[in-house]
Amino acid sequence: MGHQPLFLLTNDDGIRAPGLEALHREIRNLGEVVVVAPDTERSAVGHAITISDPLRVSEFERDGRLFGYAVKGTPADCVKIGCWAMLKRKPDAVISGINLGPNTGINTIYSGTVSAATEGALLGIPSFAVSLATYRHPDFRYAAKFARKLAGILVRKGLPQGIYLNVNVPACPEKEIRGVAVTRQGLALYKEKFDRRTDPQGRVYYWLTGQKVNKEEDMDVDDGAVMAKTVSVTPVHYDLTQYGFLEELREWDLKK
Amino acid sequence: MGHQPLFLLTNDDGIRAPGLEALHREIRNLGEVVVVAPDTERSAVGHAITISDPLRVSEFERDGRLFGYAVKGTPADCVKIGCWAMLKRKPDAVISGINLGPNTGINTIYSGTVSAATEGALLGIPSFAVSLATYRHPDFRYAAKFARKLAGILVRKGLPQGIYLNVNVPACPEKEIRGVAVTRQGLALYKEKFDRRTDPQGRVYYWLTGQKVNKEEDMDVDDGAVMAKTVSVTPVHYDLTQYGFLEELREWDLKK
Repeated sequence: MGHQPLFLLTNDDGIRAPGLEALHREIRNLGEVVVVAPDTERSAVGHAITISDPLRVSEFERDGRLFGYAVKGTPADCVKIGCWAMLKRKPDAVISGINLGPNTGINTIYSGTVSAATEGALLGIPSFAVSLATYRHPDFRYAAKFARKLAGILVRKGLPQGIYLNVNVPACPEKEIRGVAVTRQGLALYKEKFDRRTDPQGRVYYWLTGQKVNKEEDMDVDDGAVMAKTVSVTPVHYDLTQYGFLEELREWDLKK
Repeated sequence: MGHQPLFLLTNDDGIRAPGLEALHREIRNLGEVVVVAPDTERSAVGHAITISDPLRVSEFERDGRLFGYAVKGTPADCVKIGCWAMLKRKPDAVISGINLGPNTGINTIYSGTVSAATEGALLGIPSFAVSLATYRHPDFRYAAKFARKLAGILVRKGLPQGIYLNVNVPACPEKEIRGVAVTRQGLALYKEKFDRRTDPQGRVYYWLTGQKVNKEEDMDVDDGAVMAKTVSVTPVHYDLTQYGFLEELREWDLKK
């Protein structure tokens, strides 16, 4: 390359999130960094894109300097508009995070953090999502260091079209981290409940609550690795086809 | 079964959408039907769920009778709250649609319609999404008839845990429909553009526009089947792991 690598950073916790700042602080050592992130928190937005409203973009400063671009949209919107409208060239990698909270198991499919990496992969850019497996007192430093290491590898090696990485980092001091495991997405389900309440005007509303049941503890599963204080790296893709069921389904009497 | 089958119907075009009404009109011939759908259009919401706001539910009437429950939330919210809080028992099938517009190829991952079927599958319920491949002058009758046929099969045969179906129906008169194909998800990408404009206050905004390039025309691909006036039925799942890349990724030097 005749130029420094260019990184597009985004997240779903919003451009003010400390996890994004921590990521920025490390990745900027590898090359040029442009931040394009949602103006506010967009957690659990899944792979949403904004099509019926126009997107607005504003400059966002931190410590008196331009830190990045705040988009009134979703993480996927940020990657799209970053790549098609704002960057001068195709970035060498898209990195989404560092998310506050794990994106393991079936949470992966609800994750705005992961959807930004999906969007990067759709655009043919090596991409990964990185999440810290805690919701409180986060220390993003080790996760950011690991992201920097992985970003360096990614720029060197690339990824096949359609494949991207979902990284989850345990929330423990760096010296307690046991290693890095290549994993599959856990498939443990949730036991959910809706808490039914009545507001002061007498109207009913519901809060969703729930917890994962039968978490998979194997080290080759994202949940299991993170529980064992190991960084999990899961290769994912956006082809939802369940190829193993094609043959059986062809036996069904689906005729018109 | 000692009782009639119970169907949960939802969509992402909102409880007022004609596609949902057409679906309801057919499925009610098979058993008991409960509609739980978003109160307004929620297209391209991906697999979003509402966690930071409470969910509100209201009864929705059509022709002076209770038609269903309108939820201030996403399609995935509707399936969750329908199953956990509103139905007396687990439904025999979740059907999402009939969407106005195709959900083929990589659009599948942005689709609120499909995400409702995903949510049904997560809850262990045989589920499918059904979409009509047009945005204008829709005639939902044949798509609804096909959905009724498929719903009948599904209640009889079930589906393995984690597998659900994404159905796309060509927008042509029933007599021109050539048949039904079991397909895989197309992987053709979009060429996108952001149209940059300035509002009357001088502020910049962007509209997303784009079109699919290199559409796959094979009959075993959802896009190709629909273009050939054939109903496409794609088995999908929510395990995003790209198993084929696990071994190669284990060769990378990812050490802590």
